[in-house]
Amino acid sequence: MFQTFDPAGDPTVGKPRVARLRRWLADNGLDGFMVPRADEHQGEYVPERSARLRWLTGFSGSAGVAIVLGDRAFVFVDGRYTLQVRAEVDLDIFVIESLIDNPPASWISENLGKGARLGFDPWLHTIAEVKALKAGAARSGAELVPVTANPIDLIWDDQPDAPIAPVELHPQSFAGELAKDKLARLASAIEKDGATHAVLTDPSSIAWAFNIRGGDVPHTPLALGFAILAANGKHQLFMDSRKFSRTVAAYLTQLSDLHEPAEFEGAVVALAKGGAKVALDPVLAADRLRMLVEDNGGTVIAAADPARIPRATKNQAEIAGSRAAHRRDGAAVAKLLCWLERQKPGTLDEITVVKRLEEVRRKTGEETQMSLRDVSFATISGAGPNGAIMHYRVSTETNRKLGKDELFLLDSGAQYQDGTTDITRTVPIGKPSEEMRERFTLVLKGMIGISMLRFPAGTRGSEIDAVARMALWQHGCDYAHGTGHGVGSYLAVHEGPQRIARTGTEKLLAGMMLSNEPGYYKEGHYGIRIENLIIVTPAEEIEGGDIAMHNFETLTLAPIDRRLIRADLLTKAELEWLDAYHARVLAEIGPMVDGETLAWLEKATAPL
Amino acid sequence: MFQTFDPAGDPTVGKPRVARLRRWLADNGLDGFMVPRADEHQGEYVPERSARLRWLTGFSGSAGVAIVLGDRAFVFVDGRYTLQVRAEVDLDIFVIESLIDNPPASWISENLGKGARLGFDPWLHTIAEVKALKAGAARSGAELVPVTANPIDLIWDDQPDAPIAPVELHPQSFAGELAKDKLARLASAIEKDGATHAVLTDPSSIAWAFNIRGGDVPHTPLALGFAILAANGKHQLFMDSRKFSRTVAAYLTQLSDLHEPAEFEGAVVALAKGGAKVALDPVLAADRLRMLVEDNGGTVIAAADPARIPRATKNQAEIAGSRAAHRRDGAAVAKLLCWLERQKPGTLDEITVVKRLEEVRRKTGEETQMSLRDVSFATISGAGPNGAIMHYRVSTETNRKLGKDELFLLDSGAQYQDGTTDITRTVPIGKPSEEMRERFTLVLKGMIGISMLRFPAGTRGSEIDAVARMALWQHGCDYAHGTGHGVGSYLAVHEGPQRIARTGTEKLLAGMMLSNEPGYYKEGHYGIRIENLIIVTPAEEIEGGDIAMHNFETLTLAPIDRRLIRADLLTKAELEWLDAYHARVLAEIGPMVDGETLAWLEKATAPL
Repeated sequence: MFQTFDPAGDPTVGKPRVARLRRWLADNGLDGFMVPRADEHQGEYVPERSARLRWLTGFSGSAGVAIVLGDRAFVFVDGRYTLQVRAEVDLDIFVIESLIDNPPASWISENLGKGARLGFDPWLHTIAEVKALKAGAARSGAELVPVTANPIDLIWDDQPDAPIAPVELHPQSFAGELAKDKLARLASAIEKDGATHAVLTDPSSIAWAFNIRGGDVPHTPLALGFAILAANGKHQLFMDSRKFSRTVAAYLTQLSDLHEPAEFEGAVVALAKGGAKVALDPVLAADRLRMLVEDNGGTVIAAADPARIPRATKNQAEIAGSRAAHRRDGAAVAKLLCWLERQKPGTLDEITVVKRLEEVRRKTGEETQMSLRDVSFATISGAGPNGAIMHYRVSTETNRKLGKDELFLLDSGAQYQDGTTDITRTVPIGKPSEEMRERFTLVLKGMIGISMLRFPAGTRGSEIDAVARMALWQHGCDYAHGTGHGVGSYLAVHEGPQRIARTGTEKLLAGMMLSNEPGYYKEGHYGIRIENLIIVTPAEEIEGGDIAMHNFETLTLAPIDRRLIRADLLTKAELEWLDAYHARVLAEIGPMVDGETLAWLEKATAPL
Repeated sequence: MFQTFDPAGDPTVGKPRVARLRRWLADNGLDGFMVPRADEHQGEYVPERSARLRWLTGFSGSAGVAIVLGDRAFVFVDGRYTLQVRAEVDLDIFVIESLIDNPPASWISENLGKGARLGFDPWLHTIAEVKALKAGAARSGAELVPVTANPIDLIWDDQPDAPIAPVELHPQSFAGELAKDKLARLASAIEKDGATHAVLTDPSSIAWAFNIRGGDVPHTPLALGFAILAANGKHQLFMDSRKFSRTVAAYLTQLSDLHEPAEFEGAVVALAKGGAKVALDPVLAADRLRMLVEDNGGTVIAAADPARIPRATKNQAEIAGSRAAHRRDGAAVAKLLCWLERQKPGTLDEITVVKRLEEVRRKTGEETQMSLRDVSFATISGAGPNGAIMHYRVSTETNRKLGKDELFLLDSGAQYQDGTTDITRTVPIGKPSEEMRERFTLVLKGMIGISMLRFPAGTRGSEIDAVARMALWQHGCDYAHGTGHGVGSYLAVHEGPQRIARTGTEKLLAGMMLSNEPGYYKEGHYGIRIENLIIVTPAEEIEGGDIAMHNFETLTLAPIDRRLIRADLLTKAELEWLDAYHARVLAEIGPMVDGETLAWLEKATAPL
């Protein structure tokens, strides 16, 4: 199994560990210390070694920060985790604060006294973050003190070592472009930014640029490390050499100089001393890097990670790989849904479904000679009211039976070498209510609205987010998350910068892969989400039209439950889209499933 | 008539006047001077005295800037004016540049040499503008030199005096809130911004805050002047006292100290010397004000004009006034459309229609005892290909017959004391082509989409702009302007900050009045635009819904031409909206029109 069901948090750890941290604070003349969830790469997942926030507090969420003072301690989390944090931390020790309404920068300005010294590890906070924190501290007269060694690492006795999972090459047949060509493109971009060098701190960017994959964090095939790319082509990669086979080392040597991570700081200092102009992405790069460059005579150029847009705009090989991955993944999901429909309501529980789905994916991968490398995130398997918890992770404590006349929401994804998938289907267990069917159909209208949409080049994700919401809005409903996130190519299932959301300020460019996942959540009752992955297709000529338009190709292939659809609420165009989609699902995944599933699939994809 | 049809620009004026300006430059040790279209109030219209750009160059557009150097001269205009400027200026003297692609700030950075001294009048450029200009100059090593007296005013022999149109009170029955209460609200807002004072430079804000109207510029009832509002309530108004009757002066004296405009600079200096914290809106306030405050020991607080949002969110009296104005205006438009339909194709010309429409509006106003105070902008009356010119203004030179089997686009508005209107209707002259009917229906679908939309509190205009475009996008079409602009209450027909457009970053709040005007333009052939004014209504409970929703009330009442609608392209909901709208048009304006128009109106509003 690529996932576990142990309750993740542990409220008993906080008390003794906070006490140890406070002793360290006292010994080191600090009034407090800040412990973020992030590591130095700012990714969604961190290796065990870097799970400092969880170690200190017990809180296991994917975003948050603790501030420990001499007499008080605080954990800041966002709306997703307000319930979870209260179960996972000792509320006698920690006060919960809102990461959104009262983030540390403004909290500091109101809660720290004049002259208070708050320590932080500048490797774990971005340049933009530290700028905001310093502004907050300035307002209260407090001082932010960068530490040179992280105190958690000093007091965490059995802290795991940094991971050294083997690095593998990502073959040209899947990557579609040689690493040397990608690196040449990046070198030009760095020059265009007016820089001599750029530091890649995001392992997704390094994986993409060097055509490598690793296994240092869960669910995303990343090899942690840093790279310094040079406009003149003299690149340096900083990665633990124990991760490299002889073949991999030989391959990487062709592309750049190889160094151990311990040499990274020194290399940055050396560049800075030579007067380098170093491009750093203010929202990705650690503030420590800014300090190293500026303190040693170099110049920091604030510029977006040069690999972001090239990585986001998939090439033909990546798109072809993704199509194949989605056929395979759709076949697995169809097998699971067929099996699920045969079970008696009240007999299954959420964990059983997760296990079965992973097993079906594994088998389908083996049958098609493209093995399941990982799940792309911990499956969200939510029955009844658990489906209304947007980021639900089932544990042995929360595990719930799939009860009669309830909805069941299943959001899952896979990592195959040819592509990353992410799919949500919502199905009725027993007989759904009329309200459930109406709301499901409204969500479906939004999902189809995005699927059918055409839009001019240059349109931003924020401009089309409402298209997925309009039908719900008309009925006084909405959902409290974005409509779509970017998706990587055998990389992170949540990839920037593309996004369909209020905050999606990036232009939608041909080749960008996104999710299309409107939903509806009735707290305490049920959740609905329908999610397909889509890809921006190049501008097409419309007959009789004036300008070429982009639109979306749908990648995900699995039936949308007909029992939950009120056809009378769909327009003719929406019905036609749905019938055509189902016909395509049958045609593309029908040949990959067993006879029993095929018989089920034929019914599940019949025209409405 | 409130409008004229003389060709506006004059390409012969530039040569001698530029020569005079160059002599002044030489005498004053400057290498160049910048002449914007704006005056010190940054409004859409400027009084004759401030039409410096037109005087110098001949260009009569509503936005632009000239830069005159010793040997070369440039006029910067946006896309609306690229054709017009070439007809209006002497191209032997002026080079045309793009205000959008190569605005003065970046032009300066690339075209001025090191040490070049470019003069500008800091009263005519905003703080934000000068900041950008200075950054551009810094890149090229040039110097921006603020002048203390505008050289155009020195060399323009017969420059008109500043206008002194009488100020009238805007009665409580239309304003809905007493000026003293508005001023108290503004004083609180100033305090909240951390300021002791705020300078109002936008005459719309002064008109709103003091409940006064004037006549200093065309088409918008503004009294030009400045106000310094104080958090402590000691307000000062700077306005030529010749504009005040004894009654008006007595009224204004209750609200604030009254001063002549010549005392304004001194008052700002005095405040600054007293250590005032002066709020200035960076995108509205003249850079000169920033200089006066900062050079005299005061502090500038960058804050949006405090009257902007209160003015934009109309109260019940203003909304009731607007409804009445739109009934009256709809009756006038219906009379015009009825008359128009009776004329033989090829017999009318654009100017005749403009004159007739103004006359009908005037008469309808007299009949309802609410006289037409002005048109709210120069009527856009575009037959055939002229309809495709988005900001067309008909002149005796461009005047065109309304030809057979063409479309005719009529975009007009009125200023009544109870409200400002703005309406566009497109009608066929003779028989429209199938393409025209299809495109008209797509535009209509967008217009109805906005009209029917519900949306959660906090939604921004930029998020719903696409709703008006989706149907066109689906057919490979779009329009190159925003969907809606804000509208004032017997004030500017183009009012910020609300907007339905890509650039509409402001939240749509209850009471905001906007236009809803998608279009389609086929260059050289025809133009289509359908425009209603709408108003954001307070959140309403939706039966069965979770959250209250805002939507729009449609204010404009006039038939949408049935001959151009393809009912088969409309959804059931769209058809129902249209039929209900037409039934409302008949019910509300039917009683206000003559028998002949009523008979026509009954047919024009029949269900589809």
